[in-house]
Amino acid sequence: MKILVINGPNLNVIGKREPSIYGTVTYAALCSRIKKSAEEADAYVEIFQSNSEGEIVSKIQEAKGVFDGLVVNGGALTHYSYALYDAVKYADLPAVEVHISNIFKREEFRKHSVLSPICVGIVSGLGIEGYEYAINYLVRIYKKSRKETLL
Amino acid sequence: MKILVINGPNLNVIGKREPSIYGTVTYAALCSRIKKSAEEADAYVEIFQSNSEGEIVSKIQEAKGVFDGLVVNGGALTHYSYALYDAVKYADLPAVEVHISNIFKREEFRKHSVLSPICVGIVSGLGIEGYEYAINYLVRIYKKSRKETLL
Amino acid sequence: MKILVINGPNLNVIGKREPSIYGTVTYAALCSRIKKSAEEADAYVEIFQSNSEGEIVSKIQEAKGVFDGLVVNGGALTHYSYALYDAVKYADLPAVEVHISNIFKREEFRKHSVLSPICVGIVSGLGIEGYEYAINYLVRIYKKSRKETLL
Amino acid sequence: MKILVINGPNLNVIGKREPSIYGTVTYAALCSRIKKSAEEADAYVEIFQSNSEGEIVSKIQEAKGVFDGLVVNGGALTHYSYALYDAVKYADLPAVEVHISNIFKREEFRKHSVLSPICVGIVSGLGIEGYEYAINYLVRIYKKSRKETLL
Amino acid sequence: MKILVINGPNLNVIGKREPSIYGTVTYAALCSRIKKSAEEADAYVEIFQSNSEGEIVSKIQEAKGVFDGLVVNGGALTHYSYALYDAVKYADLPAVEVHISNIFKREEFRKHSVLSPICVGIVSGLGIEGYEYAINYLVRIYKKSRKETLL
Amino acid sequence: MKILVINGPNLNVIGKREPSIYGTVTYAALCSRIKKSAEEADAYVEIFQSNSEGEIVSKIQEAKGVFDGLVVNGGALTHYSYALYDAVKYADLPAVEVHISNIFKREEFRKHSVLSPICVGIVSGLGIEGYEYAINYLVRIYKKSRKETLL
Amino acid sequence: MKILVINGPNLNVIGKREPSIYGTVTYAALCSRIKKSAEEADAYVEIFQSNSEGEIVSKIQEAKGVFDGLVVNGGALTHYSYALYDAVKYADLPAVEVHISNIFKREEFRKHSVLSPICVGIVSGLGIEGYEYAINYLVRIYKKSRKETLL
Amino acid sequence: MKILVINGPNLNVIGKREPSIYGTVTYAALCSRIKKSAEEADAYVEIFQSNSEGEIVSKIQEAKGVFDGLVVNGGALTHYSYALYDAVKYADLPAVEVHISNIFKREEFRKHSVLSPICVGIVSGLGIEGYEYAINYLVRIYKKSRKETLL
Amino acid sequence: MKILVINGPNLNVIGKREPSIYGTVTYAALCSRIKKSAEEADAYVEIFQSNSEGEIVSKIQEAKGVFDGLVVNGGALTHYSYALYDAVKYADLPAVEVHISNIFKREEFRKHSVLSPICVGIVSGLGIEGYEYAINYLVRIYKKSRKETLL
Amino acid sequence: MKILVINGPNLNVIGKREPSIYGTVTYAALCSRIKKSAEEADAYVEIFQSNSEGEIVSKIQEAKGVFDGLVVNGGALTHYSYALYDAVKYADLPAVEVHISNIFKREEFRKHSVLSPICVGIVSGLGIEGYEYAINYLVRIYKKSRKETLL
Amino acid sequence: MKILVINGPNLNVIGKREPSIYGTVTYAALCSRIKKSAEEADAYVEIFQSNSEGEIVSKIQEAKGVFDGLVVNGGALTHYSYALYDAVKYADLPAVEVHISNIFKREEFRKHSVLSPICVGIVSGLGIEGYEYAINYLVRIYKKSRKETLL
Amino acid sequence: MKILVINGPNLNVIGKREPSIYGTVTYAALCSRIKKSAEEADAYVEIFQSNSEGEIVSKIQEAKGVFDGLVVNGGALTHYSYALYDAVKYADLPAVEVHISNIFKREEFRKHSVLSPICVGIVSGLGIEGYEYAINYLVRIYKKSRKETLL
Repeated sequence: MKILVINGPNLNVIGKREPSIYGTVTYAALCSRIKKSAEEADAYVEIFQSNSEGEIVSKIQEAKGVFDGLVVNGGALTHYSYALYDAVKYADLPAVEVHISNIFKREEFRKHSVLSPICVGIVSGLGIEGYEYAINYLVRIYKKSRKETLL
Repeated sequence: MKILVINGPNLNVIGKREPSIYGTVTYAALCSRIKKSAEEADAYVEIFQSNSEGEIVSKIQEAKGVFDGLVVNGGALTHYSYALYDAVKYADLPAVEVHISNIFKREEFRKHSVLSPICVGIVSGLGIEGYEYAINYLVRIYKKSRKETLL
Repeated sequence: MKILVINGPNLNVIGKREPSIYGTVTYAALCSRIKKSAEEADAYVEIFQSNSEGEIVSKIQEAKGVFDGLVVNGGALTHYSYALYDAVKYADLPAVEVHISNIFKREEFRKHSVLSPICVGIVSGLGIEGYEYAINYLVRIYKKSRKETLL
Repeated sequence: MKILVINGPNLNVIGKREPSIYGTVTYAALCSRIKKSAEEADAYVEIFQSNSEGEIVSKIQEAKGVFDGLVVNGGALTHYSYALYDAVKYADLPAVEVHISNIFKREEFRKHSVLSPICVGIVSGLGIEGYEYAINYLVRIYKKSRKETLL
Repeated sequence: MKILVINGPNLNVIGKREPSIYGTVTYAALCSRIKKSAEEADAYVEIFQSNSEGEIVSKIQEAKGVFDGLVVNGGALTHYSYALYDAVKYADLPAVEVHISNIFKREEFRKHSVLSPICVGIVSGLGIEGYEYAINYLVRIYKKSRKETLL
Repeated sequence: MKILVINGPNLNVIGKREPSIYGTVTYAALCSRIKKSAEEADAYVEIFQSNSEGEIVSKIQEAKGVFDGLVVNGGALTHYSYALYDAVKYADLPAVEVHISNIFKREEFRKHSVLSPICVGIVSGLGIEGYEYAINYLVRIYKKSRKETLL
Repeated sequence: MKILVINGPNLNVIGKREPSIYGTVTYAALCSRIKKSAEEADAYVEIFQSNSEGEIVSKIQEAKGVFDGLVVNGGALTHYSYALYDAVKYADLPAVEVHISNIFKREEFRKHSVLSPICVGIVSGLGIEGYEYAINYLVRIYKKSRKETLL
Repeated sequence: MKILVINGPNLNVIGKREPSIYGTVTYAALCSRIKKSAEEADAYVEIFQSNSEGEIVSKIQEAKGVFDGLVVNGGALTHYSYALYDAVKYADLPAVEVHISNIFKREEFRKHSVLSPICVGIVSGLGIEGYEYAINYLVRIYKKSRKETLL
Repeated sequence: MKILVINGPNLNVIGKREPSIYGTVTYAALCSRIKKSAEEADAYVEIFQSNSEGEIVSKIQEAKGVFDGLVVNGGALTHYSYALYDAVKYADLPAVEVHISNIFKREEFRKHSVLSPICVGIVSGLGIEGYEYAINYLVRIYKKSRKETLL
Repeated sequence: MKILVINGPNLNVIGKREPSIYGTVTYAALCSRIKKSAEEADAYVEIFQSNSEGEIVSKIQEAKGVFDGLVVNGGALTHYSYALYDAVKYADLPAVEVHISNIFKREEFRKHSVLSPICVGIVSGLGIEGYEYAINYLVRIYKKSRKETLL
Repeated sequence: MKILVINGPNLNVIGKREPSIYGTVTYAALCSRIKKSAEEADAYVEIFQSNSEGEIVSKIQEAKGVFDGLVVNGGALTHYSYALYDAVKYADLPAVEVHISNIFKREEFRKHSVLSPICVGIVSGLGIEGYEYAINYLVRIYKKSRKETLL
Repeated sequence: MKILVINGPNLNVIGKREPSIYGTVTYAALCSRIKKSAEEADAYVEIFQSNSEGEIVSKIQEAKGVFDGLVVNGGALTHYSYALYDAVKYADLPAVEVHISNIFKREEFRKHSVLSPICVGIVSGLGIEGYEYAINYLVRIYKKSRKETLL
């Protein structure tokens, strides 16, 4: 199984950005962790970070038919990018929305996600482990649907 | 590490209640799954289900200083029990709110959780796997904080 | 036919509580009356009173598939307990809502029942006889449905 | 004991009118049922049906001091006849409001009863059995008050 | 001069109905008082009471051209009967609306009279003396108009 | 074909009531006209006038299965009688609502008819001829449906 | 007697336009029907259809003093043409507004007629027979006024 | 100087239409008055009346470059014809809006003119003299602009 | 393929009317252009211009079953003519709405088209070329549907 | 005099729970203080704490006729438990509502007490001394009423 | 003449994205079509697609003075990118907004374009042909302006 | 002291873009001015312009710990880019928001800045001098804080 992990604007500086909210793990470490999580879950993972909405949209498009699931942490784009919404809808893959912090506990503008209606579920506030859980869940429903297909 | 899993009213009848929403796994099976998840995460888990707000409040109080983390699925109490809110706040343990279904996609009264502001994070819509992820997360932050304490 | 009668908080002190509203019959006498009503209606009845929402929820859950009908006087829980609502919905039995006093003639907060939408009918203000009528009605629709099933 | 049963406009055509709501029992059969209920309850019953507000008002007035209780199904008058309200208030007899269907589950204009505040209680949604329960209840409170008077 | 006094639903039971509001004078006594008032005012009076909107409408119709004035106490019909409104308008006689109690000081629904716009005036809350004042006034305007006609 | 014509309160005094609005034809003459209209249309007609809502409700009930069509001029009842509404709905006959005056040109309260939603069509303002047209129309759709039934 | 029948925009294509609403009778057949109705009513009829507001306004002006009555089905102009309103007012002829369908049961914009306040009456929902009734009515009031003039 | 006077729908029947509002001067007389006014003001005038929005639009178009000013009484078109608005704008001539009656004192719908924003000024309620003032004013500004051009 | 091009009020004076908005091409030139466009697209085109709503309505009616597509520039009628709306709906042909200027950039009243909901698409602001594009598009979908029909 | 002190959910953990708000006095110490206060006031006191709404309801019920006064700190139940309200009302004892913190200065949900309307008074924000003042006050009114009874 | 065609986010995946709305033509085919259209229109065309707002902004800036016209399909950016708005305004080139689907017939957020006020015109709902028409139009106005410049 | 000046989308084309609003100084000249201002204020300045939200976000991230202050002119991103907001917050440097024009005097959408809450201050409408003032201010607070640190 192949999973694409999308990290939006400012996630590259994690570890250095508001550590009281996002923790102190660096982006490199985050990526290692995500990769290890994928290995443990028997999945191939590609991680893509960009501060650019356009590059993210492109990456999600390319994932269509190539990847089997999406983990999306849209960063601030979560709250206004209909281009991202269009891209996730286009990719037509099971997607789990991940937020490192609990978006329901912060500024008003962070409480609304334009992506939620097109995602399977949400993990918010479980730190960088949220990625692992999202990957794990995607692998499980993937295996389950594969089994069902074989029957 | 010791984790207390709280399951609120009507979670004991899971598998028999609205299976299109909550799935067909029975409560016994859910408990086995939770225990297995704990074992795999090297944690001791106690699962406490009650339909009684008072028993849940007492159990959470007793967990203070005894357990190292909480997983809370408050069932319908999620939406109105400030006694539960006070208890979780008192216990002063890292708590993860779990909902099997995505509460943001159901009846109006289910969309507001009085517990969210005092939990570390939320897992909603990832099925019973949500418990596993919550336990796993608690173990990790526990181990991490232990290490930090040792240094 | 087996009927479960649920009496919510404070119904145990009936006879001693606001007699001008609830009358002077004690709870023991109320229970005798309910049992006699059931006998006369050829039904087995179990009466369960608790001041605890949780115990009531549990009892209603256990009634599923064991009892053939519910008589529910939720007491003050009628007006705010979504846990009770979830339990009655789960039990999936014909339920008649009973109130000893006429709830439509009292405080504002008593005029709204969260249970009404999931009950067959309402008897309000007919005193403790309301239980008898509810039992009687449940027996009748039970016999009728049994006859229809036999045909 | 003497009970007056009032049936308002269009109740005479029951059985032929919207059977999915009101059932298929004819008015004659309904009357027989009411009478049998009264006999069983050791009461004399007079059933008065009229489509005329004025006749119903007069009948209720005449009941004062002659009858010992009222069962009132006001039909559509329930929702706007303050003359009926005044008459029931005047008669000063214990009155039970009966509705065959559950009026709280139908058109907006049927959800408000101008009679409720001056009735002892309400039976709604228990079909034609509602009359039986109302009579039964009136007989009981009558006997009880008689006994109390004798002491 | 011939005056028709109309008494609507439930006025026939005055003296027996809510004496704290309507007093203890019986309907027979009220009628005597009205007749005496008429005699003193040199007028012939006919008093008509009915609980039926239809009969009152008919009586008022028949008054046209036969009587010289109307005193109308519509009872509860005052508040919703446009049929009564149409009848009073038809009769084309000077009409005084009388209410024994002050309808503006009671239940919400009694504060609106559909008859007021077509009556010469209103006397409300002056007890049964209200009838006397109404008759007296009608006689005066009658005499005045007669004089004017003779000139 | 048998048609029932219903005339509500105050229609009996037509010709004498606000002639500038309703004209000068007397009720007897109106009836003759209606009967002649029916004869010309090859229909039997029964005309029923009452100032009593109750008598009208009864008459409409009796029309069920006996008459083939209804012409309803509810008079002032048009605007508030849900009992009349229930009766017309019960009768289950094609009904044409007739008003001698144009109700859309008069007082605010006359512009709303509770009967319109259950009538085939409306004739308003064409004077007493409105009855003739309504009868004529009912005869035509009756004959047409008969022919269709024969085919 | 001379009657002018005005048919507004798109009435010429009746029979081919939304037959489920307007029926399948063609405009030629409608005209024949109208003429036959006129003959039977002993009236001369001129039928004028135009899709042009201006031509309709001119035609109605010319009808003043030449025709004795108007039947107006303004089509869509009914809902916005104040020029048509001014013309009908000017013509000072008895006018009957006709709508084949019941305009009170369709789109919001069709429920308001700017012509109603200046017409004698309205026939709505009685199909093409509406024209016959309108003509018939105009003939009658014409004959009647003629007779009155002769006296 | 050449002035075009436009008279909209129903102005051709002035003198015969609501004389209490529009006066008794006939259209022929109105035209004579307008012509006399023009002569006195040293202007040539052409008067155009039509009931057709289309013909008026065409006439105003043709006036472009041929006439030196417009007097526009749009009749009822004043209130909704954006086609007339477009035509006046196209003609690019100084235009004065004239209304014989004071449109701001009449029915609601007459209070809004879509032409006002593109006219030089408005004369409303000064009777037929309004045309004289409009012509007079147009001549003055014409002469003034000519002088300015010569300088 | 036969296409009908409708040009509403004031389009005949194009070239001379607000050239900064509509350009300087005359109507004759516009028609030549439209015809040439049609020829190039292998279509027969008829162009119809009128300042009269009625003539446009008639023309569109006649197009039914004769033409294969409509290009509609309703001019100012676009914004209020429900008669035009009824006609386009009746014609039941693929219709493209064309506006020479960009109606979304001008006065408030021009931003709403009553025709849009019944057209295939809109071309606004592309000058007179808009007609060419509309014709071209209609020809393409016509050919495509023809091919599909042949298969 | 016998006083029952009720401490609701989470009061058992005082001293350990949010010390900045509730102080550092432990529940045992609080109980000692309350007992000492009672001794000083010459009263016997029983202190009851429970996290269960049901148990508190039961305890208050049992206090009826046994105790002479109530001190109630309902904890979070204060804000939504109508069952507690019913129990206090039932006990029919003078009750003083106590809150250690000032509930009117904290979260929105803590500002509304459903118990206030049935208590003699409220002491809020005076720390644990509040219990002392409540007991003291109850003793005084008790003595006063005793004296009055003796006279 | 040189035209720059801008295609915003997700337009590169056309043909694979919601084909019921956008059709099945691929982006490569769309580009071929656009190029062929340009060739036929004697224009050089550069097509630029990017999912990045910044790249699109830069490209549009660079087009200033280099290209002679713009065709802009902003994709989802149409609805919120004021940076795109600023860039198009800066480029100061004739721009045509193109949407393959009719944006006025879809989700609420798609009905508002921030670009419309600064574009020459809009083509919406004419499929991919919309690009052809836009290019064609730009070429024409270019040639025309060139000619005018030469004169 | 090192200051980073950020210029957002379309600022690179200043001097060529709406000179009446932004002036005629080119971007090169603007940069010279900014550099001169920095020199005069004894500061090193780096100026970064990009049309890409992503690149700006990246640049600001990199400034963390390297620069001592930020001057941010976000261009149109000012009004909707929460990604920019996150980046500025991350950089944790004193930031001054600069706008050449007065954004509060222009289009509605320019009046709201999402950056304001995380900047030290705003300079808007003071032309390109705004950059000078911003730099000057940053230098002053830098020196002041350095002094304080040395003490």
